[in-house]
Amino acid sequence: MTKSSGASANNVIQMRAHTRRRQEANAYVPSMMPSVAGIDDDEQPYTPTQFEACLREIGARYYHDRHRFHNLLHTGKLNKGQVQAWALNRYYYQVMIPVKDVALMSKMGDPELRRIWIKRVLDHEGRDGQEGGIERWYRLTDGLGLMRDYVSSTAGILPATRFAVDAYVRFVRERPLLEGITSSLTELFAPSIHKERISGMLKSYEFINEDVLAYFEKRLSQATEDADFVLDYALRHARTRREQESVCAALKFKTDVLWVMLDALYHSYVSGYVPEGAFMPEDFDDRPRFH
Amino acid sequence: MTKSSGASANNVIQMRAHTRRRQEANAYVPSMMPSVAGIDDDEQPYTPTQFEACLREIGARYYHDRHRFHNLLHTGKLNKGQVQAWALNRYYYQVMIPVKDVALMSKMGDPELRRIWIKRVLDHEGRDGQEGGIERWYRLTDGLGLMRDYVSSTAGILPATRFAVDAYVRFVRERPLLEGITSSLTELFAPSIHKERISGMLKSYEFINEDVLAYFEKRLSQATEDADFVLDYALRHARTRREQESVCAALKFKTDVLWVMLDALYHSYVSGYVPEGAFMPEDFDDRPRFH
Repeated sequence: MTKSSGASANNVIQMRAHTRRRQEANAYVPSMMPSVAGIDDDEQPYTPTQFEACLREIGARYYHDRHRFHNLLHTGKLNKGQVQAWALNRYYYQVMIPVKDVALMSKMGDPELRRIWIKRVLDHEGRDGQEGGIERWYRLTDGLGLMRDYVSSTAGILPATRFAVDAYVRFVRERPLLEGITSSLTELFAPSIHKERISGMLKSYEFINEDVLAYFEKRLSQATEDADFVLDYALRHARTRREQESVCAALKFKTDVLWVMLDALYHSYVSGYVPEGAFMPEDFDDRPRFH
Repeated sequence: MTKSSGASANNVIQMRAHTRRRQEANAYVPSMMPSVAGIDDDEQPYTPTQFEACLREIGARYYHDRHRFHNLLHTGKLNKGQVQAWALNRYYYQVMIPVKDVALMSKMGDPELRRIWIKRVLDHEGRDGQEGGIERWYRLTDGLGLMRDYVSSTAGILPATRFAVDAYVRFVRERPLLEGITSSLTELFAPSIHKERISGMLKSYEFINEDVLAYFEKRLSQATEDADFVLDYALRHARTRREQESVCAALKFKTDVLWVMLDALYHSYVSGYVPEGAFMPEDFDDRPRFH
């Protein structure tokens, strides 16, 4: 996007992308910028079919199933230390998801909606006598030989992981309820990546078995049910074009959170630039490198 | 930090680092975790000399003058597109700094402190008839051939840049005044990197001249004055050990913000993994690569 760029096709594409993404980008600038600033109030809303297609297009373009770190993870190309780094960092995401969900519930005036949403909190925290998703995540970190005290301290996670996850919690706290709810639309795209992960990791790593992957097996049914509800909620509650665009921006924001986490893992543990103070695997010097 | 790791020297070092950094890491977990949780109220405070040495040690270990992206930037190893990407992303930091500073001022009950602090806001926003730091930053992006509309839209910045900068603004909004003020202690270490940048970039790049680097020249005097004030403030106002540790954590947090921004630039524009939708330089395919 340079001054002297009038003619190049590359820049025409960039300019279009820039215009198209302008509201998405603005949606999570701190409060002094309104989201979806470019949308007129009288702009025609999408039909439900168009709106769902927009959401699925965002998933196809930005969801982290396309990230090269996942490709390496699922095809057995990483060593144990790299898988440890992934599980350790992702733990912070897991433990903050219920924080995000109760922050969201605190904005719900409708008791019926809270009753539906609390299922997610209990799915992660656990119910009487039943382990939840956080406990199931420890099965993974246990299986990888990480000490629980170290995992729960989050002392070794990458600063980028913390910034991305905290951005998600604060997005849900600060933005309107509709955007907070629909930021979880990434769950629409989760079941296929979880299936790929389970079969790929079981086949590829001698330190992985079905027990340590229990989290993902459970999420196959949980996430499908949750995603169906949120998609239906989005289609019913985002009626104006402005509301629809805000939902698209919320979903794009959430894909950024997930993508940034994997970029940081790749830079640190595949490219090999671990920041001072972050987790350092024992087998770091023997790690596979891909350039 | 693995279960079976009792004996390895590497892990002993990790465990020490883990213990030492525990409060630093906790300091910016969202509000449910108190910062400096591990400090007893009756722990002996550092002497002023010890406390200043701690702060300078954090700078020596974590400040981004040690980041390899800066090394490439200052020694002429990057091409124009990579320098554009740096200036474009850093713009978001520049434009949010006064937002951070007014958020901080809104917590200052003391008018004298506000009168001192507003200098920073004016340094960036400009005074009657005098350009400020943001305008000076545009001289750099102009000089690099980036369109102002595109720069100011922030549409092409990396999501990691946004998360890191937003984390900084929110840190200052949410944390106590002492931590908000002292998070700017990175300015202690800024003059030497600015000098290195000015001389290195002038020598190395035909698209750089003194005019486009006016921002850094001006910051040499501004940042020194500001840093002296904040160091003195820290030494006078952080009296208990807990307060001193919270200042160390605030400074460490700020170094993380700066480091994450450069990690993301390196991963995207040196390693070459630009996320979908971010700025794509025209000379991307001819960029220098370093592995």
